[in-house]
Amino acid sequence: MTHVTLAVDAGGTSTRAIVVEPTGRCLGFAVSGSGNPTAVGHPAAAASVISSASSALERAGLAGADVGLVVLAMAGARAMDDNGEFVRRLAEIDVEGRLVVESDLLAAYFAGTHRAEGYAVVAGTGAAAIRVEDGRQVVYADGLGWLLGDEGSGFWIGQRVARAALADLDGRGPATALTPLLLRRLELAPPASRHDRDTIIAVVRRLYAAPPVRLADLAALVFEAAGDATADAIVRDAGDALARTLAAITSPSVTGPVVLGGGILRNGRALAERLVAASGATEVHTVTDGAAGAAVLALRHAGVAVDAAVFQTVITSLAELRSGARR
Amino acid sequence: MTHVTLAVDAGGTSTRAIVVEPTGRCLGFAVSGSGNPTAVGHPAAAASVISSASSALERAGLAGADVGLVVLAMAGARAMDDNGEFVRRLAEIDVEGRLVVESDLLAAYFAGTHRAEGYAVVAGTGAAAIRVEDGRQVVYADGLGWLLGDEGSGFWIGQRVARAALADLDGRGPATALTPLLLRRLELAPPASRHDRDTIIAVVRRLYAAPPVRLADLAALVFEAAGDATADAIVRDAGDALARTLAAITSPSVTGPVVLGGGILRNGRALAERLVAASGATEVHTVTDGAAGAAVLALRHAGVAVDAAVFQTVITSLAELRSGARR
Repeated sequence: MTHVTLAVDAGGTSTRAIVVEPTGRCLGFAVSGSGNPTAVGHPAAAASVISSASSALERAGLAGADVGLVVLAMAGARAMDDNGEFVRRLAEIDVEGRLVVESDLLAAYFAGTHRAEGYAVVAGTGAAAIRVEDGRQVVYADGLGWLLGDEGSGFWIGQRVARAALADLDGRGPATALTPLLLRRLELAPPASRHDRDTIIAVVRRLYAAPPVRLADLAALVFEAAGDATADAIVRDAGDALARTLAAITSPSVTGPVVLGGGILRNGRALAERLVAASGATEVHTVTDGAAGAAVLALRHAGVAVDAAVFQTVITSLAELRSGARR
Repeated sequence: MTHVTLAVDAGGTSTRAIVVEPTGRCLGFAVSGSGNPTAVGHPAAAASVISSASSALERAGLAGADVGLVVLAMAGARAMDDNGEFVRRLAEIDVEGRLVVESDLLAAYFAGTHRAEGYAVVAGTGAAAIRVEDGRQVVYADGLGWLLGDEGSGFWIGQRVARAALADLDGRGPATALTPLLLRRLELAPPASRHDRDTIIAVVRRLYAAPPVRLADLAALVFEAAGDATADAIVRDAGDALARTLAAITSPSVTGPVVLGGGILRNGRALAERLVAASGATEVHTVTDGAAGAAVLALRHAGVAVDAAVFQTVITSLAELRSGARR
């Protein structure tokens, strides 16, 4: 049983590990907590990666088997100077194979297509787009974080939701359905009057008490308020912002598919449609996460030519394992 | 020599103390460091207040004299539960008078007019507007901080400057004169090519290394780049945002003057003009800081009827002391 490879898609919220054989068949799958060193620190991220990897190998009946290659897809892969922690921890569970770190955006891309050229746009808490050529991420746009970029992301939308509701309460902006939704979310009573400063101060205190990036949690309200003029304008602006990010990296010579990922593009249908319409893309795939793409990257690094058939095997067998994991 | 009052205008950057007699004549003036507890903590803020107060009394030749009343104007006055530190420290320099804490916005207002009804709009690092009736601040808009409000403020402008320059570098936005200005400010070389990710990362790292609110320091670049379409649009949007803040608290029954304060409204002539045009105000005064207004508030609390003549005495005598202090 040599030649299996291990793929890990380490995200900010959860981490997914997949054991895959060269045919594309996924043999084991497991999920653990955050695997993002920026979010939870190196030791906790490494622990999540190890935990999911170890469970996936066990479920494949391959604990202790020879794993020739580990592909770890994660945010900030470009900036990661030191893989030592991951290599050491993998050795502890007898995984001694070569470790390759790849971009989480490239994993999202290959979760949607086997084609070696195309684009991915991911909008979750943050937002970024990449162009893929010859199976590699060659150009990157945005992904500059909540303070300076991530335009059209969950944070970007959530901050606008909070600002619009506060402007409404403050008399600076139009009345919007976002205001009662925000107050309910914060378990605050409706304002007693116009310019009810106490309600405004209560909202502001609650929101400043959490790290700024948590405003991303409010993005869902904009979809809940669909039909409200202010909410719809935020969705429109977010779609346009993501379209600009994609347009910035579009090349006339790369006509491959556009893969959409991240909670905002999965849940915001109107937003995704606006982005797709602006891009002029004809082939669009929406993915749940980068798990299948991490498996595809693992196969590619192992020298497997991932064609449509192998890709389909990855997708189908992984879906079976996932539905099994949920039972 | 009884009946002199002490006025202190405690700001985030500097603190100004004025000794004023009932005629409106200012007898002593001194400046010290930040007097804002939120910015530098209570002990340091109290030390600045005491240092400026003590110097102003000394320069008036009134060290140890009987000061019946101290008016302290500062941001967040409404939220200040405990004046104990200030009262204790004032007693150490033999100032035993009653302490009244007032809003810094009201001090800015009375630095521009003696009239008991009108409006003030202040845009420095943050931004807020108040309506004044019967000499008191009765309605307040915005001032909700950099993450959730302060629309049209120095932070709001500076963040847009950074985002516009990064969008330019990233190919997501139009070329703008703000980009070379920002790179020069950060002492970074011009980008080697389009999508020069190294330059983008260098800018992002530099800006995330400081507290977010320091983006306000970049606001000046928008005035430097006047004539650039992107810069002019930011200025226009900021003027419109401040106009909405003022409009939110405007009452048809209060037709008094509009007083403009804060670095953004002092230095951004086009921005202030846009705000004034939108407001329809006919009487507008721009003030340097709240020092004269703190003196007016001190006189009002001491029971002096501050009419046009007394107000003019405050302004003229304070200007003389300040020009003396500069010599």
